[in-house]
Amino acid sequence: MCSVLASEKQTFIYRLRHSLAHIMAQAVLQIRPGAKMAFGPPVESGFYYDFDFQGEPLGERDLENVENIMRRIIKEKQPFAQAYKTLDEARAFLAQTDQNYKIEYAEELVETGKAGGEGLGFYTNGPFTDMCEGPHLEHTGEVPKACFKLDRISGSYWRGDEKRPMLTRIYGLAFETKDALDDFIARRKLAMERDHRKLGEELDLFMMDAEVGVGLPMWMPNGAVVRDELEQWARESEFRAGYQRVSTPAITRSELYHRSGHLPYYAESMYPPMIVDENDEYYLRPMNCPHHHKIFGARPRSYRDLPLRLAEYGNTYRYEKHGSLAGLLRVRAMCMNDAHIYCTPEQVEGEFRAIMAMYRMYYDHLRMGNFRVRLSLHDPKSDKFVGNEEAWNRSEDIVRTVLANLGIEFEEETGEAAFYGPKVDIQVKNLLGREETVSTCQLDFVVAERFNLEYTGNDGEKKTPYIIHRAPLSTHERMISFLIELYGGAFPTWMAPMQVQIVPVKDEVLPCAHEIAGRLRGGLFRAHVDESSESFNKKIRNAVTHKIPNIWILGMKEMENRNITWRRYAVQEQQTIPLDDAIAKLEVLRKDRVMDNFAE
Amino acid sequence: MCSVLASEKQTFIYRLRHSLAHIMAQAVLQIRPGAKMAFGPPVESGFYYDFDFQGEPLGERDLENVENIMRRIIKEKQPFAQAYKTLDEARAFLAQTDQNYKIEYAEELVETGKAGGEGLGFYTNGPFTDMCEGPHLEHTGEVPKACFKLDRISGSYWRGDEKRPMLTRIYGLAFETKDALDDFIARRKLAMERDHRKLGEELDLFMMDAEVGVGLPMWMPNGAVVRDELEQWARESEFRAGYQRVSTPAITRSELYHRSGHLPYYAESMYPPMIVDENDEYYLRPMNCPHHHKIFGARPRSYRDLPLRLAEYGNTYRYEKHGSLAGLLRVRAMCMNDAHIYCTPEQVEGEFRAIMAMYRMYYDHLRMGNFRVRLSLHDPKSDKFVGNEEAWNRSEDIVRTVLANLGIEFEEETGEAAFYGPKVDIQVKNLLGREETVSTCQLDFVVAERFNLEYTGNDGEKKTPYIIHRAPLSTHERMISFLIELYGGAFPTWMAPMQVQIVPVKDEVLPCAHEIAGRLRGGLFRAHVDESSESFNKKIRNAVTHKIPNIWILGMKEMENRNITWRRYAVQEQQTIPLDDAIAKLEVLRKDRVMDNFAE
Repeated sequence: MCSVLASEKQTFIYRLRHSLAHIMAQAVLQIRPGAKMAFGPPVESGFYYDFDFQGEPLGERDLENVENIMRRIIKEKQPFAQAYKTLDEARAFLAQTDQNYKIEYAEELVETGKAGGEGLGFYTNGPFTDMCEGPHLEHTGEVPKACFKLDRISGSYWRGDEKRPMLTRIYGLAFETKDALDDFIARRKLAMERDHRKLGEELDLFMMDAEVGVGLPMWMPNGAVVRDELEQWARESEFRAGYQRVSTPAITRSELYHRSGHLPYYAESMYPPMIVDENDEYYLRPMNCPHHHKIFGARPRSYRDLPLRLAEYGNTYRYEKHGSLAGLLRVRAMCMNDAHIYCTPEQVEGEFRAIMAMYRMYYDHLRMGNFRVRLSLHDPKSDKFVGNEEAWNRSEDIVRTVLANLGIEFEEETGEAAFYGPKVDIQVKNLLGREETVSTCQLDFVVAERFNLEYTGNDGEKKTPYIIHRAPLSTHERMISFLIELYGGAFPTWMAPMQVQIVPVKDEVLPCAHEIAGRLRGGLFRAHVDESSESFNKKIRNAVTHKIPNIWILGMKEMENRNITWRRYAVQEQQTIPLDDAIAKLEVLRKDRVMDNFAE
Repeated sequence: MCSVLASEKQTFIYRLRHSLAHIMAQAVLQIRPGAKMAFGPPVESGFYYDFDFQGEPLGERDLENVENIMRRIIKEKQPFAQAYKTLDEARAFLAQTDQNYKIEYAEELVETGKAGGEGLGFYTNGPFTDMCEGPHLEHTGEVPKACFKLDRISGSYWRGDEKRPMLTRIYGLAFETKDALDDFIARRKLAMERDHRKLGEELDLFMMDAEVGVGLPMWMPNGAVVRDELEQWARESEFRAGYQRVSTPAITRSELYHRSGHLPYYAESMYPPMIVDENDEYYLRPMNCPHHHKIFGARPRSYRDLPLRLAEYGNTYRYEKHGSLAGLLRVRAMCMNDAHIYCTPEQVEGEFRAIMAMYRMYYDHLRMGNFRVRLSLHDPKSDKFVGNEEAWNRSEDIVRTVLANLGIEFEEETGEAAFYGPKVDIQVKNLLGREETVSTCQLDFVVAERFNLEYTGNDGEKKTPYIIHRAPLSTHERMISFLIELYGGAFPTWMAPMQVQIVPVKDEVLPCAHEIAGRLRGGLFRAHVDESSESFNKKIRNAVTHKIPNIWILGMKEMENRNITWRRYAVQEQQTIPLDDAIAKLEVLRKDRVMDNFAE
């Protein structure tokens, strides 16, 4: 049932998890001898087994008992022994204990020719035998000490089909060592606490609404601040790097996508067309490129104008399948830190180098350290890549050389390129180690020709530019989903929805608190006075709950001396300093975009 | 043929223009006795007459001759005399000179009952008689001296129907005085030079493309700067005024518009739906309001949270008729300076007052003086206004009182309200005196209920908030179309696409010029070194052609003394000052958004 690479099956972790599934099933059958077994594969971070309990199923309260029996089985060092049976033998054997699910599967394996030449594989350890293709450990004693834990129970359907019987799935976690298991559990706990959907709700960052549509996030004021600050940073970085901003509509007539080649090829990822009549049909755009190409093509261009770097935080829309939507990570409306660089062949390497440096600057600054760089190449055997082999090799060489020269470690992956050229993907891992492509940078040697884009070279000849597509800060949606989880919702001062919470110790200082807040707001700082009637300690706790990076405490003494007492998020120590110094320090936090949510 | 108010027909200007049409026709017939007349009405800024010349038409070169004959007719002080004919009499009279167009129209007037009880009206002056309902001047001598000018000749179809004969239309300009005529001609010349479509092309501000679609402007880098600067200003103003920004998608499921009432009512102004299946249908949004209402409704709100001011420069899309599209003035994709203020009844007046103050600040600062304020009221006789009479009167009184208390002059207009409440419209005139609604501010006492929006009052009861809709800076598209024309493309330094053009006098200073440009760009100023091989004078002229507000001239002497010579756009005088002072001055121009394109 699993389509797992043969090499992966030989790893210790695969055999360990697979064996633990059998050990668990043996234990479960000791408690409930009448239970029927369905499937029990190793999975990411552990294993599971599905049972039909023919009545009252096991519950969470039984898991400790199952674990105890498992530990006994492990102590017994039961060897795993393989044997083969014909279909008839298998049927007869499985019928003894009424294992109807296994019989159904055995028949399917034989019918579809998936059973090996030797017949149907069975593994036996101790009193327990299961139809299974292995491989397993040598014996149950090989299971390392305290490396597994039964995790949870859920419902599932036989063969995932809701018209078939409902089964009970028991999940276990398993790693090669106790430390790895403990680490995973700790990380999962953190990940759950920091889940961007949970924090997005708690911190009023974004929302979705059924009447507006799934996968269409609406950014509430707190979330809009984070977007705006990221975007402002990108604007400044891009201005300094010689980019020029443009602004284009999120729709187009279908003609544009017939030219670009996105239609009909890409149609299934797009929203359906808006059909005015047969000659006038519009699409929401799934990407910004063709609009930018139109701007490049609207004027005669000379080599003196190149590189031309057109940037836009562009709104795009993709009709992702309902089931694949996930918070902000996978959405249907997104805003991308996009730019297209039109350049001569000689400029490609320098531009690529500058872009990679910009990526590194962003990732370093944001403390997004948990990523790998993937060089995605074309697959010469596939027909989904446009252009000739020589051009592909030349383009891939350019990118490979740039990465090597910059000393960036990367892994090559065939078949992951864009249809128009090779790309560099930044693969970021979340707290649970799951990887997503966050940023990408693509070298395009195909599309300029489709749009008849050209420039006059210094020899007076018309030439076709290379195009680099890049989006270092990804989409707001994806990038912020990672940042929320990485920071646990505690943004640095420069990005924080509320930057300073002013906590007055008593009512007498309220006017002064408001005066300070007014001064801060006049300087475009996001500041707020806690006027509630809560106790002082509750006020501090409230500011911490809202993950406000700076609490300024104002008592009588502070007021008299024009001081404030500064307390940082989640830090006990506090410091009383002159108000003017505090504001100056705040200016620096903002101007330098200091990551004050990380200890230096 | 014209549906003109009776009162307007009695004005001198109407009778003057109408009489001049007859005088021109009389003159034309003197030159071409066989010409057949079609329609000849007074129009905005003058009059025209359509002729079928039955052969070679008159051309621009003949207009002087026609004008001379007209002046002779005016000198003759021919009285205008009215008479009525029956249809038969009219037919017989018009048949004498083969006036088939007039006969067709006479028959239509009688058939449709549009001829008056007295019969078909005819006016005679001198040897010329025309079927016409008047009124006219007493005699041709009443035409003021030098108050008219034949303007141009164009083609037109009889009854505007391209299947009917092609006619020749001769246009004349006419005003009550020579000064008014001269003024109009001067303003028209300026308006043509300043036409935002022409300047948009010349200054690379924006473009449209047939493959993307008509009415869908794409902002090129220069135009994107203007947008960004306006938007940044709005953000700061709104932050200081206690607004909070949000960001929402430009699409929604149709459910949202069934709730808001925009569907089916507003459907004809919208792009067609994107139909995934019968249960999943999406629309591009024509306005931002319903998305904001969802954000208000997503959390329990208390009177303590009000007023809640949600702002967004929101992208909206409207499927305007092809024929009504006009450059940036009327488009299909727009980005609106929108906000919605949710408040208690007691807060309405204060909020409205603050908004009006913000409008005034923007309009004063931008030097948009040529506007009037219109209070748009409901029409009790129409059914397109939702809600009861008493609520309408109460809301209208609130707005009327605020305007009066602020000392804002305004005119009331019945039937121009939004369907959900009264509104204040800022009606701006362009250089030709044509008026458009640029900004609007609306008081909505209806929609909150449709969205079940509520807040808990200080008495613990659930209450429905008022909603104020406001967009002082209009859409980027409309506002910038006005600003381009008002400024003739010469933006103040803070908005200018290029802020400083550095003109090196000789090659030796080039490195220093680049150092200065680098310093400016490092400070996020838009600066450029003219490295071309053109002459010094040509370089200055180029900077002026591009309407760059500041030219910094750098010669050997300036370089040695760390000075620059500053020359402002379209100003001859120049000033040599220390570089550091110049940069400090530039900072002030930017920070204070100084309108240095206007003489103070």
